[in-house]
Amino acid sequence: MRVGSTDEMPNQARIPYRMRRLSKAPHGRIMDGPDFEKSALIPTIAQDASSGKVLMLAYMNAESYAETLRTRRVCYYSRSRDKLWRKGEESGNVQHLKHLYYDCDGDTLLVRVEQVGGAACHEGYESCFFREVDPDTAAAHIIAEPVFDPAEVYGRS
Amino acid sequence: MRVGSTDEMPNQARIPYRMRRLSKAPHGRIMDGPDFEKSALIPTIAQDASSGKVLMLAYMNAESYAETLRTRRVCYYSRSRDKLWRKGEESGNVQHLKHLYYDCDGDTLLVRVEQVGGAACHEGYESCFFREVDPDTAAAHIIAEPVFDPAEVYGRS
Repeated sequence: MRVGSTDEMPNQARIPYRMRRLSKAPHGRIMDGPDFEKSALIPTIAQDASSGKVLMLAYMNAESYAETLRTRRVCYYSRSRDKLWRKGEESGNVQHLKHLYYDCDGDTLLVRVEQVGGAACHEGYESCFFREVDPDTAAAHIIAEPVFDPAEVYGRS
Repeated sequence: MRVGSTDEMPNQARIPYRMRRLSKAPHGRIMDGPDFEKSALIPTIAQDASSGKVLMLAYMNAESYAETLRTRRVCYYSRSRDKLWRKGEESGNVQHLKHLYYDCDGDTLLVRVEQVGGAACHEGYESCFFREVDPDTAAAHIIAEPVFDPAEVYGRS
């Protein structure tokens, strides 16, 4: 699994890994940041900073995490394309970083973002979670209207 | 990776996999539910149904997913203990299922829950995301107060 080497990274981007400060958690556990040594790819939840809506889940590696902090624009790591994924680079629907959190185990990230274009999903919906399951029947239903037409934005036929 | 076999599962729990209906997504793609054939363990975001706060991320396998739908109490699959994890079984802080969604790729779940006890995190915080990173310094800060003392709830010294 490819993880950005420090050679590729501009000086500023190395700060999180070289100089990260220790913050002592209660109950004696040390936790100084997301742990990319444990997992090269860390699941990252994107939440709309205004509405609180959960928009999507993607993955970050150390390099995309550093770039996100440095640029304040959310950068993921695409597992299917095996490279950095600057969210919105194709659609224009970038995510401006407002807040970034990591969880108690250091293996999940949460970003609160301003979602440009009002839609995070490549299918044109505000949120990727636009299908709800009815527990009584286990059937799924689409519960939202698309904000844009993917065929227009991505040029699909 | 262990996934619950159908033999172990009560009849009702099989419904989601045997009878799940196809819902045709826009643009011709068929998506009939979370795809446990693609990933035996699916990351699951838990969000407080009232406040919209993102509480935690854990994983479900097919068996825990079926149990969650059937019981309306959120059941995950613990990767570290390698078994079903009925959230709150030790602390009493169970999660009542209000809504369940899956994403456009069928590889992530979102549950909106009523969090009993007001805290989802085993460290006593409402949310597991209680550490925020300052992009300017890459330093982390604890941004919440614990709701309970884990030593009391879990009997740690």
